[in-house]
Amino acid sequence: MESVLSDILPKADGEQAIVMEAMRYAALDGGKRLRPFLAIETARLLGSETEVIWRAAAGLECIHVYSLIHDDLPCMDDDDLRRGRPTVHKAYDEAIAVLAGDALQTTAFDIISHLNTSESIRLSLIQELTRASGVYGMVGGQVIDIMAAEHDRNETLINRLQALKTGALIRCAVRFGALISESDTADRDNLTAYADDLGLLFQITDDILDIEGDAARMGKAARKDENLGKATFVSILGLEGAKDKARALAGRAKGRLEPYGEKGHILASTVDYVLTRDT
Amino acid sequence: MESVLSDILPKADGEQAIVMEAMRYAALDGGKRLRPFLAIETARLLGSETEVIWRAAAGLECIHVYSLIHDDLPCMDDDDLRRGRPTVHKAYDEAIAVLAGDALQTTAFDIISHLNTSESIRLSLIQELTRASGVYGMVGGQVIDIMAAEHDRNETLINRLQALKTGALIRCAVRFGALISESDTADRDNLTAYADDLGLLFQITDDILDIEGDAARMGKAARKDENLGKATFVSILGLEGAKDKARALAGRAKGRLEPYGEKGHILASTVDYVLTRDT
Repeated sequence: MESVLSDILPKADGEQAIVMEAMRYAALDGGKRLRPFLAIETARLLGSETEVIWRAAAGLECIHVYSLIHDDLPCMDDDDLRRGRPTVHKAYDEAIAVLAGDALQTTAFDIISHLNTSESIRLSLIQELTRASGVYGMVGGQVIDIMAAEHDRNETLINRLQALKTGALIRCAVRFGALISESDTADRDNLTAYADDLGLLFQITDDILDIEGDAARMGKAARKDENLGKATFVSILGLEGAKDKARALAGRAKGRLEPYGEKGHILASTVDYVLTRDT
Repeated sequence: MESVLSDILPKADGEQAIVMEAMRYAALDGGKRLRPFLAIETARLLGSETEVIWRAAAGLECIHVYSLIHDDLPCMDDDDLRRGRPTVHKAYDEAIAVLAGDALQTTAFDIISHLNTSESIRLSLIQELTRASGVYGMVGGQVIDIMAAEHDRNETLINRLQALKTGALIRCAVRFGALISESDTADRDNLTAYADDLGLLFQITDDILDIEGDAARMGKAARKDENLGKATFVSILGLEGAKDKARALAGRAKGRLEPYGEKGHILASTVDYVLTRDT
């Protein structure tokens, strides 16, 4: 994925080279690559893991990286560290961080519009990605997270917030794999349900790590949400309650993969990885 | 165009309604709509002005509006007024301004990917728009504008800067009209050359207005570039030199329309409008 991303990102060149450098700084050398991994492994499960899904997955990752750059800005979460390194506005400046994020979004649609696959699939991917990343998806979730008053943060609201802020792009990743494989509706719906379970599991383990995690290993501050006084699955369900919910979700997510037998092994292992991760 | 934009923009709804409101605040009730106008009139000149070009033009305008929101941010040009009203980060806040801009970019690609025209045309429009708005277009021009040292701002550099920062999207507007009309290459190239002349003319008259314009009529501060000490076509060519260059460009742009006879009348009048505008 590093080499695919390096290939699709603009090379630092011309008088505007600094913004290409900032895009590459943000997108390369780090990250779990969970979304590209899910896209590619879903395509593999459905029998069509080709160069097209790798490049589509890299485009999707550009959307994720743009959102991280903008979320880290002083006017948003005001984070100095990301993946153990200075955030883009710290390594460059705020103006370059805004523009690098903007251009990464553009790059995502550029890459997908040029994929070596049918026009119909390219448009479906673009439509899937706009739905997942706009006001009814990722950006909408971020807005709710910024605006929701503390007393409104019950389990229903943080479920909904998570489904948009992080869940929509995880769902999109799995659906990218299904769309490129031209899977039937039953497979697509079933794997979408797997993605939704996994996305929620990811958020709950994130909240648990925020309490129990090791800042050095994670490369970012721990206890951030707690210090901000933000409601999380842990503050609402308690630590043991959150862990119970995580285990139940993990079981349900793996159950979705049973129809695929041995072919579902990697996506099932991914559930265990998310459940037991320490970064 | 107001009603088309109002139709394609998300309605304020749900817990994230504030970002939809900010998007509508920025995009509606104002602006010259030069880019949509050029797209639609180019399609009309080529004989295919339909609902499709109106919606495509509205998508293109969303890209322009997103760039204005982000350019106005404190970390960029730090502007308080736009079209006579508080800028988005003043009317809302900085976080909402960043996210409203992000979501307007997404909306642009969403609208175009759903146009009621062939898959091939939709993809061509998306590719045209990513090229015009990314690091090799609008964002690249903005980066050069931020980074260029004052002593490097000669006529060559500000020509190149303009061609990216404002020229690329004006060119894209005309090419939208040509792509949707499925015009032949000769028409497309000729009208692209018209757009490039008009875009440069637009920048030169912008620089002249920055010196001679009336702040109240323009709805924004005058003498902004001069106060920032930024080189402009006026500071490099002198006021009379800039006006001479503007008249020469206007003549050349209108010359490109001669092959179309009476049908070229509206696009030719647009040249006169840009040459003599006072806002």
